[in-house]
Amino acid sequence: MSSSTDQSGLSRRAMLGVVGGAGVAVGVAGASIAYGPQGTAHAADVDGPIEFYGEHQAGIVTPAQDRLHFAAFDLITESRDDLVALLRAWSEAAAQMTAGRPAGATGAVDGHPAAPPDDTGEALDLPPGGLTLTIGFGPSLFVDAEGRDRFGLADRKPEALAELPHFVGDALRPEISDGDLCVQACAYDPQVAVHAIRNLARIGFGKVSVRWSQLGFGRTSATSREQTTPRNMMGFKDGTNNLKAEDTALLGEHVWVPEGEGPAWMAGGSYVVTRRIRMTIETWDRTPLGEQETIIGRTKGSGAPLGGVKEFDELDFGKAGADGTPAIPMQAHVRLAHHSTTNGARMLRRGYNFTDGSDGLGRLDAGLFFIAYQRDPRTGFVPVQLNLASDVLNEYIRHVGSGLFACPPGVKGPGGFWGEGLFG
Amino acid sequence: MSSSTDQSGLSRRAMLGVVGGAGVAVGVAGASIAYGPQGTAHAADVDGPIEFYGEHQAGIVTPAQDRLHFAAFDLITESRDDLVALLRAWSEAAAQMTAGRPAGATGAVDGHPAAPPDDTGEALDLPPGGLTLTIGFGPSLFVDAEGRDRFGLADRKPEALAELPHFVGDALRPEISDGDLCVQACAYDPQVAVHAIRNLARIGFGKVSVRWSQLGFGRTSATSREQTTPRNMMGFKDGTNNLKAEDTALLGEHVWVPEGEGPAWMAGGSYVVTRRIRMTIETWDRTPLGEQETIIGRTKGSGAPLGGVKEFDELDFGKAGADGTPAIPMQAHVRLAHHSTTNGARMLRRGYNFTDGSDGLGRLDAGLFFIAYQRDPRTGFVPVQLNLASDVLNEYIRHVGSGLFACPPGVKGPGGFWGEGLFG
Repeated sequence: MSSSTDQSGLSRRAMLGVVGGAGVAVGVAGASIAYGPQGTAHAADVDGPIEFYGEHQAGIVTPAQDRLHFAAFDLITESRDDLVALLRAWSEAAAQMTAGRPAGATGAVDGHPAAPPDDTGEALDLPPGGLTLTIGFGPSLFVDAEGRDRFGLADRKPEALAELPHFVGDALRPEISDGDLCVQACAYDPQVAVHAIRNLARIGFGKVSVRWSQLGFGRTSATSREQTTPRNMMGFKDGTNNLKAEDTALLGEHVWVPEGEGPAWMAGGSYVVTRRIRMTIETWDRTPLGEQETIIGRTKGSGAPLGGVKEFDELDFGKAGADGTPAIPMQAHVRLAHHSTTNGARMLRRGYNFTDGSDGLGRLDAGLFFIAYQRDPRTGFVPVQLNLASDVLNEYIRHVGSGLFACPPGVKGPGGFWGEGLFG
Repeated sequence: MSSSTDQSGLSRRAMLGVVGGAGVAVGVAGASIAYGPQGTAHAADVDGPIEFYGEHQAGIVTPAQDRLHFAAFDLITESRDDLVALLRAWSEAAAQMTAGRPAGATGAVDGHPAAPPDDTGEALDLPPGGLTLTIGFGPSLFVDAEGRDRFGLADRKPEALAELPHFVGDALRPEISDGDLCVQACAYDPQVAVHAIRNLARIGFGKVSVRWSQLGFGRTSATSREQTTPRNMMGFKDGTNNLKAEDTALLGEHVWVPEGEGPAWMAGGSYVVTRRIRMTIETWDRTPLGEQETIIGRTKGSGAPLGGVKEFDELDFGKAGADGTPAIPMQAHVRLAHHSTTNGARMLRRGYNFTDGSDGLGRLDAGLFFIAYQRDPRTGFVPVQLNLASDVLNEYIRHVGSGLFACPPGVKGPGGFWGEGLFG
C-alpha cells in the first residue's frame, strides 16, 4: 500500500520501467527535491515540486496553483488503529506524490505483475506539477451526530471546530457538505491533482469512502501583489484585498493557530471553511454593468474600488460620489466583507471557480468553491458571513455546500504523519 | 448581442477600459491574428489564437488542446428565423472569442453602463488560449422524437445521422445524451473554454437551453507522433494508434465528408460521436497489473503492444507469446478496436478525461469523455463499437451518455455563419 524505501528518488515513469536502468535512487525517502527526468526536463515553476514536510502544511499560504481537486471522506471503520494506519499511509503517499513519484510500488518493479499496482498510473509521465496535499479533520471525526466518541478523540476536539451557524441564503445539501476528513489537492495540472485524490481514496479502501469531491480551476486568491488577480464567474477580479503571501505578520495573526490556543496538537495548524457557492449566472448576465459594479463595489474592468482609479487603491468608505451618496454603497459587497466592518476579521481566501455541467433546468451549474484558512472560524468566517446577510449579492448566489475542518500542523519529516499530535 | 465592428482588434481587457487609450483597433473584424497585449505578452503556443475561419471547422484535426468544455443545447424556439439568427450571432461571437476578444460589446465602451454586458468578463485578462469552437447538429434538429419537421430541415437530414444502435454495456441516461445542437470548446485554459460556452448560452437566451455539458482535462488523442501520448484514468496511454495530424491522406479518407456524399451542405464537414464513459476505477485499481495489461493489450508503463518493445511498434496480432498463445490476446481491447478487425473502420479520437465529484456511493465519478470525428458513423464508430461487444474492458466501464452530431464545414469568412449551407 505505502511506498517503500527502494522507490525513493525514482520518477513516476521509472516505476514502470519506462526509464529502465536509469531509474536508480537519486535521493532519500521523502526528499521532495529529488524527482525524475520528466520533472527536471521542465524549466517552469509550475512543473516543480513543493516541499511536503515542514512546520505548516503546504497548500495554505503556498501561492495558489491553477487547479483544485478537493475531497471529503467519511470513515467507514470504527477502529482507532485503522485511522492511525490510514493517516500514516496517506502521509507517506503524499510525500511521494508531491515529490513527483508514484504513490507506491506498482507491482512491476520486481517483475511480478500479479499484484494490483500501488499507483494508478495516470500521472506516470507528468512532472510534480506543484502538487500540494493538505488534510483537515471535521467535527464528526471527534464526536458524531449521535454524540458518540468514535475514536477516543472527543476530549481533543478544538472549541474552534464549533458547528457553523445558519446563514442567510444557506441552501445546504448534506451530501455535498461536511465529512470526517478532507484533503485539498492543488496543482498546476488537473490530472496530477485528480491522480493524488484518487490514490488516497484507493489506499483508504475499506476504511474511508468519498463523501463528496469538487474540481476547480482558476485562482481567486491573489497570493501576491505581483500576480494578476484572477476573475470569478461573475467576471469580477476576486481577491484584490485578500491577505498576501508577503504579509507574514498578518498571516501569523489571522491564519496560523499559535501555541497555547486550543489543544496543543493544533499549534501551527489552521482551520479551513469551504463553501460551494452556486451563482445564478444567467440572472447576473442580464444585470446592467452599472448595477453589477454597485453590488460589488468595484469596477469590472480594472477592479478599482468605486471612486478609485487603480485596482489596489485603498477602499475609501467615507468618500462621496458625484451625487453626494457614498461612492462605495453602504450595501456593497466589498464594504460588508471588509475587516473594518467585521471587528477586524480576516481570512486567507483560496477559492476556485467551478462549472459542473448543467443543472437539469437548462442552466450551467457554475460558481465559486470558496476556501478560506483562518486561525479561528469564530472570529474569521462566521462574523464575516453574518455581516453579509444584507449583501445584495445574495440575490445572485446560493451556498449549497459547506465544510469545516481543523488542519493540523505540517509533518516534520519522514516517519511522521498527518495529525500525529492528535494521537500522542 | 453580437459583436460590432467598433470592437475589432481590441483585446478582451481593452473592452472594459483597462488598457485605456491604447485599446484602439489594430486589426480588421475577424482577423484572428489581432489580439491584445495579454496575448502577445505570452510567447508559448498555448496562449495564441487558432484561426476560426476556413474550409473545415477548427477543433477537429487541430492538435488537441488540454482542456474541454462540451455542451449540448436544446432549441426552445420553433422559429426557423430564430435558429438562423442564433447561428449568425454564435458565429460572430465565436470569431471574436477564438481571436481573444470579448464575445460582444460590454456596455462600458461608450461610458454607458446601463446595459447588461455582452461579454461576461471572466476571460478579460486571459489570452486567446488556443480556443476552438466546433458546432454540430443533432438528429432532433431535423426531425424530433414525434417525427415533426421542426424547422423545415427534414429533407436536409443526412442519412449518416441515423440513430446509433444499442450497444452491449450501454446504460445511457437521456438527460446527458443527445441534443439539438452541440458546441465543443477546446482551449489550453479551462476558464477560456468555460467562458466561451457560457457566452454562447447567454447569447442564446430564450432560444436555447443547456441540455448537458461536460468538462474534461488531459488529451487522450495523440494528434502527432511528436507529442507524448496522454494517459486515461485507467493509467494507460490512450491514442497511440489514433490517426495523426500528419496523416493527411488518412484524415481525408476517414474524417472529412467528401463532395457528393450525402447532402451538399455537409461537404467538408464531419460527424462526431460523443460517449460519456464512466470507469469503475475502484474495481480497476484492485485488478493485478498483468490482468490490466492483458485486457488492454499493451504494457502500462511504456505503452508498447504486448510482445513488442516500444510504444509505436506495430500491433502484431499473429505473434505468439512464450506459452504459444497470442501475445496480444484474442479479446484484448487493442485487437477488437483495430481497423484490421473492423472492416477498416477508423476515426479521429479526441477524448478527454473527466472527474465529476463523487457518485453518492462513496466513489469518484470518473472516466473518459470519448469524442470521435469521422466521415460516416455507420462505417466508423458503429462497427468498432459493435466489435467491442466481447471486450473484457466492458466489465470496468459503462457508457452513460451518448451524442451524435453532424458538424458542417467551416465558416469561410466574416459574414458567413455556421451551417449556412443548410439554409440555402
